[in-house]
Amino acid sequence: MNMAVDGTKGSHRTKKAVVLLSGGLDSTTVCGIAASENHEIYALSFDYGQTLKRELFYAKKIAAHFRVVDHKIFQIDLAKIGGSALTDDLIEIPLDRKEDDMRDIPLSYVPARNTIFLSIALGWAEVLGADSIYIGVNAVDYSGYPDCRPGYIDAYQKMANLATRRGVEGDPVIIKTPLLHMKKSEIIRLGHELGVPYQYTWSCYSDSEWPCGRCDSCVLRKKGFHEAGLVDPALVE
Amino acid sequence: MNMAVDGTKGSHRTKKAVVLLSGGLDSTTVCGIAASENHEIYALSFDYGQTLKRELFYAKKIAAHFRVVDHKIFQIDLAKIGGSALTDDLIEIPLDRKEDDMRDIPLSYVPARNTIFLSIALGWAEVLGADSIYIGVNAVDYSGYPDCRPGYIDAYQKMANLATRRGVEGDPVIIKTPLLHMKKSEIIRLGHELGVPYQYTWSCYSDSEWPCGRCDSCVLRKKGFHEAGLVDPALVE
Repeated sequence: MNMAVDGTKGSHRTKKAVVLLSGGLDSTTVCGIAASENHEIYALSFDYGQTLKRELFYAKKIAAHFRVVDHKIFQIDLAKIGGSALTDDLIEIPLDRKEDDMRDIPLSYVPARNTIFLSIALGWAEVLGADSIYIGVNAVDYSGYPDCRPGYIDAYQKMANLATRRGVEGDPVIIKTPLLHMKKSEIIRLGHELGVPYQYTWSCYSDSEWPCGRCDSCVLRKKGFHEAGLVDPALVE
Repeated sequence: MNMAVDGTKGSHRTKKAVVLLSGGLDSTTVCGIAASENHEIYALSFDYGQTLKRELFYAKKIAAHFRVVDHKIFQIDLAKIGGSALTDDLIEIPLDRKEDDMRDIPLSYVPARNTIFLSIALGWAEVLGADSIYIGVNAVDYSGYPDCRPGYIDAYQKMANLATRRGVEGDPVIIKTPLLHMKKSEIIRLGHELGVPYQYTWSCYSDSEWPCGRCDSCVLRKKGFHEAGLVDPALVE
């Protein structure tokens, strides 16, 4: 698996996959995995009213790198709902949380976010005739979000099987979560082997010029690269 | 229950409910039921790229009638995905289907629509601290959509319990489907008793000045009023 997965090499792609692409490290790794498994990739990103618009800029670079067949950016204004530090300027991003505290759901939790994103992906996958949806959820080195846990994904799959024409006809869209049980360092090592362009990924919850190093996302990323024994290319000037 | 449920009479409202309001007969009846059960109503409608924009006009009238606390209209452009006669001008609305054929999923099926709508409702309900989401799905006099059946709703509830902070904390948002097992005529009779303003509802899938009388939705509505022994006030000039 040492080849670059830029869409130009490797065997013929026949299956279609919708990949939820945020522009972060996990979803970009998942895009690399889907590509390495010979899928035609249909990338899906969301302009959901996040204060962090920068991640969409990175998502576009990553989609271009992987030469996806289509990259749709859906506008859904979750800021109308509020309730999260990621969509509401008045709620502060939690900083310097100890890893043990990350099991508590933090203020950066966006209510029902993965459920909403997966649902749009499900509709698109059904229309495309895609066999799967890839999502980079992880329940090891994560922020305690309920919608990243294995039980949630299992329940989503069961619901999706009943929700759709494809499910009724016995050919359901499969939700794939290759990172679910991996440590951050294992994710990074796998992505590194696959040639995933981590220089184009952005994890920090702040919108500063340089990652803050203090939000959950920065803390987990830093630890991951450290444990993987690799340099984070996004931090190389 | 013969009083008008316009929000001015009846007992004190204490609980909050998100009501999915399309502007059609079923969702309007459900709004009347939620009001009669003393809920503060937060109505949620979608401008989802439907060719039938008129239903949003009616949804606004209905929300005003029930004096809802808030009425949000979310824009989600499902026409980007396509695959349905309701979002794609090039796919024709099926007309003159026999009732027996309505068990087959028709071209008016919008992939994952209820899943997407419920997911936004779930996020909003969690932020509001609402105890329930009302949705007017019906699996008796319906068009065979998979996401209107009891098994789907049960699976959605299980998924929602795992998806949210509220679910994790043992106080999940409850999906309420009071019309699920009712015949259209029973729905109309109940709504009539509750004073539901059917003159403000629009069911027809066409965008003509007057209901076509031939699409599934018109056929089911006509039969319902006939069996209920009532005149459809929307057809009175």
